[in-house]
Amino acid sequence: MSKTAAGSFFEDFTAGIELIHATPRTVTTGDVALYTALTGVRFPVHSSEPFARSLGFTAAPLDDFLVFHIVFGKSVPDVSLSAIANLGYAGLRFGAVVYAGDTLSARSTVIGVKENSNAKTGVVYVRTVGVNQRAEMVLEFIRWVMVPKRDASAPAPEPVVPELPEAVEPAALIVPDGVRLEGYDTIGAGSPHLWEDFEPGEKIDHIDGLTIEDAEHMMAAKLYQNTARVHFNQHVEQHGRFARRIVYGGHIISLARVLSFNGLANAFHIAAINAGRHVAPSFAGDTIYAWSEVREKAAIADRDDVGAIRLRLVAAKDHACTDFPNRIDEKRYHDAVVLDLDYWALMPRRG
Amino acid sequence: MSKTAAGSFFEDFTAGIELIHATPRTVTTGDVALYTALTGVRFPVHSSEPFARSLGFTAAPLDDFLVFHIVFGKSVPDVSLSAIANLGYAGLRFGAVVYAGDTLSARSTVIGVKENSNAKTGVVYVRTVGVNQRAEMVLEFIRWVMVPKRDASAPAPEPVVPELPEAVEPAALIVPDGVRLEGYDTIGAGSPHLWEDFEPGEKIDHIDGLTIEDAEHMMAAKLYQNTARVHFNQHVEQHGRFARRIVYGGHIISLARVLSFNGLANAFHIAAINAGRHVAPSFAGDTIYAWSEVREKAAIADRDDVGAIRLRLVAAKDHACTDFPNRIDEKRYHDAVVLDLDYWALMPRRG
Amino acid sequence: MSKTAAGSFFEDFTAGIELIHATPRTVTTGDVALYTALTGVRFPVHSSEPFARSLGFTAAPLDDFLVFHIVFGKSVPDVSLSAIANLGYAGLRFGAVVYAGDTLSARSTVIGVKENSNAKTGVVYVRTVGVNQRAEMVLEFIRWVMVPKRDASAPAPEPVVPELPEAVEPAALIVPDGVRLEGYDTIGAGSPHLWEDFEPGEKIDHIDGLTIEDAEHMMAAKLYQNTARVHFNQHVEQHGRFARRIVYGGHIISLARVLSFNGLANAFHIAAINAGRHVAPSFAGDTIYAWSEVREKAAIADRDDVGAIRLRLVAAKDHACTDFPNRIDEKRYHDAVVLDLDYWALMPRRG
Repeated sequence: MSKTAAGSFFEDFTAGIELIHATPRTVTTGDVALYTALTGVRFPVHSSEPFARSLGFTAAPLDDFLVFHIVFGKSVPDVSLSAIANLGYAGLRFGAVVYAGDTLSARSTVIGVKENSNAKTGVVYVRTVGVNQRAEMVLEFIRWVMVPKRDASAPAPEPVVPELPEAVEPAALIVPDGVRLEGYDTIGAGSPHLWEDFEPGEKIDHIDGLTIEDAEHMMAAKLYQNTARVHFNQHVEQHGRFARRIVYGGHIISLARVLSFNGLANAFHIAAINAGRHVAPSFAGDTIYAWSEVREKAAIADRDDVGAIRLRLVAAKDHACTDFPNRIDEKRYHDAVVLDLDYWALMPRRG
Repeated sequence: MSKTAAGSFFEDFTAGIELIHATPRTVTTGDVALYTALTGVRFPVHSSEPFARSLGFTAAPLDDFLVFHIVFGKSVPDVSLSAIANLGYAGLRFGAVVYAGDTLSARSTVIGVKENSNAKTGVVYVRTVGVNQRAEMVLEFIRWVMVPKRDASAPAPEPVVPELPEAVEPAALIVPDGVRLEGYDTIGAGSPHLWEDFEPGEKIDHIDGLTIEDAEHMMAAKLYQNTARVHFNQHVEQHGRFARRIVYGGHIISLARVLSFNGLANAFHIAAINAGRHVAPSFAGDTIYAWSEVREKAAIADRDDVGAIRLRLVAAKDHACTDFPNRIDEKRYHDAVVLDLDYWALMPRRG
Repeated sequence: MSKTAAGSFFEDFTAGIELIHATPRTVTTGDVALYTALTGVRFPVHSSEPFARSLGFTAAPLDDFLVFHIVFGKSVPDVSLSAIANLGYAGLRFGAVVYAGDTLSARSTVIGVKENSNAKTGVVYVRTVGVNQRAEMVLEFIRWVMVPKRDASAPAPEPVVPELPEAVEPAALIVPDGVRLEGYDTIGAGSPHLWEDFEPGEKIDHIDGLTIEDAEHMMAAKLYQNTARVHFNQHVEQHGRFARRIVYGGHIISLARVLSFNGLANAFHIAAINAGRHVAPSFAGDTIYAWSEVREKAAIADRDDVGAIRLRLVAAKDHACTDFPNRIDEKRYHDAVVLDLDYWALMPRRG
């Protein structure tokens, strides 16, 4: 048995098997500071202890995407180390709030396998759950990846394709435990625009752009203990399809989320991700811009202090989003688009 | 009302208005570690808890310039997001000591406006105050910036130009609360040179040079939640005057201060900044050097353990400071100079 | 007396003198987060508080090499600021466990001096000891460096050459205080391979490669408050032998150690370094690979839960280690090799 891991092949996955991911991770204010330095994030719930406590958090919670990246990173060695492509996400929900000092670990269940018609690759579907040290769910999601077959002549397994939710139902969204939004300080947050002020169909150009450096996206991926090789090894990637290291797609999600602060400063919590697609790879030197579209609004049962807002967050590179670069048809996008993310955020209501 | 902020224009400022800045920020040992990694700072009061406690600090205080950058960063969205130039600082004083766990917020008062003769721009003067979670002043300063007019044909306001102090009076300098310097450990600090050893007129070349990378200055500015666009967006800046992202001027101040450790290791606290000028922009690839000149010394009332020393800190790029590159006349500097800072530091006395 | 330090010359060293290094350093979870971001380290003892506590640590200890780099950094201003070369390490042992909140300081004793035959340089041997705030030894090592003479005509001192241990004796290895390995979780650690599974002579290619950026290695060296100029000053180094900044050799050690996780995940603690050699310099843009060879195994007295394993860790640049690039003869190495490190690690036993 080899002592080293070189990544799994399609034949290694069977519907029903459970993968317990290695490297539990205690998160700290050091991680928070790095996430700030790598993204420039400004949402006040994560930036200020008193702001967070005023809403009922017991401390400043970690940024939702920082939690996502750490949990996702744990799954890479077992799921996607040799993946050809991350095809999509669905049914992602955040659960228990994560604070500095918590320890995150993760496991995944294979919920589907389907060989591709070329017999060289297949699609693997997994449901990944991240938990804290009390075994409380902090994050769960489905993702599917294309992985190579070890042996093209191996027989195809019976295809198992899970039913994927088109979106997370508003009733399934989890408001962070103990949190009440009545005292939300819009001045501290930097924006007066609350849940009532947004309407479905509204588009917001987030104006600013952030240029990516290799050192930054590699430090981000290393912070998340993400080991996917395409991010780190220029000696190999120089001969690859793009001749460059590929930025971890999650870093683009973070940058787009951070850019969205300018317009959506009060979307204080990501409750769920309905769907996500990395439309094109990003590289060092790219400048990321973003725009959002309000898709839907939903009340939260028995709450008049907080509401849910469903947003599409589109990121583009080297292209200011004043013209809202978009999907062209079912398969194609404007050339500049790199990310199309559909999520539910929570926002304070006027009550 | 647009939901996004694109920066203020000259017409948006009127003497007397108060701007409450967004995004309160809890500072942590994570921020301290990043500041160390981004600058290489070695002053022992900030590096060692026992060293700090031996002087009466309740823990290792944050570096004064880390505090400055965070407070300054808060003012950017409301004051200088669309500024054409940061023209100067005056009357800057540090107050309450800042420790990890404190939460900083900031507000500014417009104290002057003066349209320029071209009618296209104007100068805005603000007094910014940073406070901790107990509303104690941690930092206050005046700065003035040149901002564009939205509409050149708009009538000029009545000019209001505040009286700017030439320097902070020694009597106004604040010794950190509870701090006594009798037990100061010069060996731990790395230098035997105390307040008595410096004489007005003395010049010190700080010898070393630090090269700047884009990833570093952008991470620094993002850590400070500074949103000024010129630091981050190469897609825009490639068409700008310099074709490159401009390094946040405060990063240059930090590098110069850190370089000054070699010669001024016992200048353990910045008490005030009398004046500061970013003489020229810096860019990734520049190597920063620095030299200092002792301008003045002052006793602190009723204290024989600590004295004040007024220093000029000059930074130059791609030019070792063995020849002390300097101001040539009222308007011009040696080509290599990027920073001219006039400040009061505190130093232990032999008693 | 000049107030600035420009580095010591050979004549400044005499066998027997003690150098007390400046800048005590309190280490924090911020430093840990940065070390993770700069290296991608995944050893679970350092990553997870509960994992560490389950073994008897009182918290997650700092990575051994993070401790090494900080102690080493303290010695640079007094030992190697103007060194021409770091010639080697010997007899390195880790002692008391270092936790976030501890304060590290260091001192060195000159244990040997020998002028080179060219009369322009000499070799200085020092024994460096790092201690925590309770004066407990956390790390001790011998290193020797080549430093220039101030004056080639100065008479050569009587040569004093210490006897260097070929290796640390297994009986001298220190198991971290209070640590028992019976409950070691191989699933959390990501590998089932324990002490019993390795045999002398076994070679392991660690597969992955990590490309280095200037921002990363400079941030690492600054985090460690290492002031050696060759890492930081491109304005000077552009005219140097390599026309580039040289990566701090310790950063290469860290990257090689982190790469070795893929194959040696359960080598949870570095107990000693027998010998180390930086075979060639590394630069930004280099991609580091590594392979290991098992040299020896040793039981630990009265312990059946933990054993010692002596490993050679070889790092190469821009060359995958599938062919185990190696030493050719006493003086020469394969062109790609940059590091040859001989160390003792501890690993859990099956009991």
